[in-house]
Amino acid sequence: MLPNIRVVLVNTSHPGNIGGAARAMKNMGLSRLVLVDPQDFPSHDASARASGADDVLAGAQVVATLEDALVGCTLVVGTSARDRRIPWPMLDPRECGAKAVEQAGEGAEVALVFGREYAGLTNEELQRCHYHVHIPSNPDFSSLNLAAAVQVLAYEVRMAWLAAEGQALKVEKVEVASVRSAELATMDEMELFYQHLESTLVDIGFLDPTKPKHLMPRLRRLYGRSSVSRSEISILRGILTETQKTARGDAHKRKDQ
Amino acid sequence: MLPNIRVVLVNTSHPGNIGGAARAMKNMGLSRLVLVDPQDFPSHDASARASGADDVLAGAQVVATLEDALVGCTLVVGTSARDRRIPWPMLDPRECGAKAVEQAGEGAEVALVFGREYAGLTNEELQRCHYHVHIPSNPDFSSLNLAAAVQVLAYEVRMAWLAAEGQALKVEKVEVASVRSAELATMDEMELFYQHLESTLVDIGFLDPTKPKHLMPRLRRLYGRSSVSRSEISILRGILTETQKTARGDAHKRKDQ
Repeated sequence: MLPNIRVVLVNTSHPGNIGGAARAMKNMGLSRLVLVDPQDFPSHDASARASGADDVLAGAQVVATLEDALVGCTLVVGTSARDRRIPWPMLDPRECGAKAVEQAGEGAEVALVFGREYAGLTNEELQRCHYHVHIPSNPDFSSLNLAAAVQVLAYEVRMAWLAAEGQALKVEKVEVASVRSAELATMDEMELFYQHLESTLVDIGFLDPTKPKHLMPRLRRLYGRSSVSRSEISILRGILTETQKTARGDAHKRKDQ
Repeated sequence: MLPNIRVVLVNTSHPGNIGGAARAMKNMGLSRLVLVDPQDFPSHDASARASGADDVLAGAQVVATLEDALVGCTLVVGTSARDRRIPWPMLDPRECGAKAVEQAGEGAEVALVFGREYAGLTNEELQRCHYHVHIPSNPDFSSLNLAAAVQVLAYEVRMAWLAAEGQALKVEKVEVASVRSAELATMDEMELFYQHLESTLVDIGFLDPTKPKHLMPRLRRLYGRSSVSRSEISILRGILTETQKTARGDAHKRKDQ
């Protein structure tokens, strides 16, 4: 179950933090590290701070974009400061651990995403997440060290995992009405849907690409919290394709006039 | 209440860890640091890793023995690997946070004691503690970085403190619900949306009213479980209206041919 949970570090400046994160992960039983465009890796500083978690560093996947890091995931949780402009479903670290373990236990791929040391995640990156997690902190001194933040979330994952292991024999899983994780659309399938939705909205003249306002973020938020299944995505995309055909017919007509 | 909880680091080798511990403490709202015979303090490395928690370092009390560090305390919890020869009352970090906050709230002085980087606390030191706390970890890689261990216990203190204060958990809960119930679309607004959606799907030729199959029930299931807000419904209906305009233009064109 724990191998299904990956830690994604975006654009890390200090390799020592990558090493510290790797150590924290291995201490808590996590092994899968994905680095999005790290500024300095591999590095001696990373290995020094990893203090024996070299296997986690050696196995780390380095990718160019956050999108690449999230391929296959059906649950993505991004770390965030509390007061963001766009409201988003928020978890505290404990809820984050419980949700990650619950979904990983059903076979889902889960990503915990951490931003840059000084600037965190951008709003665009945060909009790719199903949930945001905020580590409660002193409002006057709220920015945790990156490896410390990884430590807290990995610790809560381990606590939830231990609790789940302890109960595994006692509790029969009650099937919830929603959608099973195995049937959920993955992040990359959702991305293709959002692209398709956006281009369709442009085609019908609902979205002005020069003045997008907050339309796409709001639609991402709506569909992002719905746990959309694969078959639902194919219905929605069928509707979009048909809408685009209609719009193209309409465009032809306008040209004809 | 939090000022009653002190963090005691025994015989620390690396000043960077003292700085990391100070930062973790301040992030979680703790301020009182006691250093028992540190090998190198004050130090540039400590200040660098403290990253702004200089006030915690400046206020740190340096003492010669653990006994000196514990003066005035009525609750002392020492970090420990799990399998010690001498059985002792054990807490997990969550129980430790709860107990520390409970007693500090009653005016007691509480100490959380952390051992050396490589050797932990001696048996003699552990015997001065009322409780031992073990951070659950991977049995094959169980030794946490000192600052990471301080981070985990300080985090659990903060979580317990927030729960005791009552405020924060409630606020978090509201955020988790993602859409507030007052803002949710009502059942009748949802019905109008479904009717609008259905007629639009007919207009674009995606839904054949003579062979509806299970399309509308499936779309109802998707949107029905999403807790759609009023403002989201008005976006979705705006899209439908625009789609219908496009479809009507297209229909005109077909008629013209």
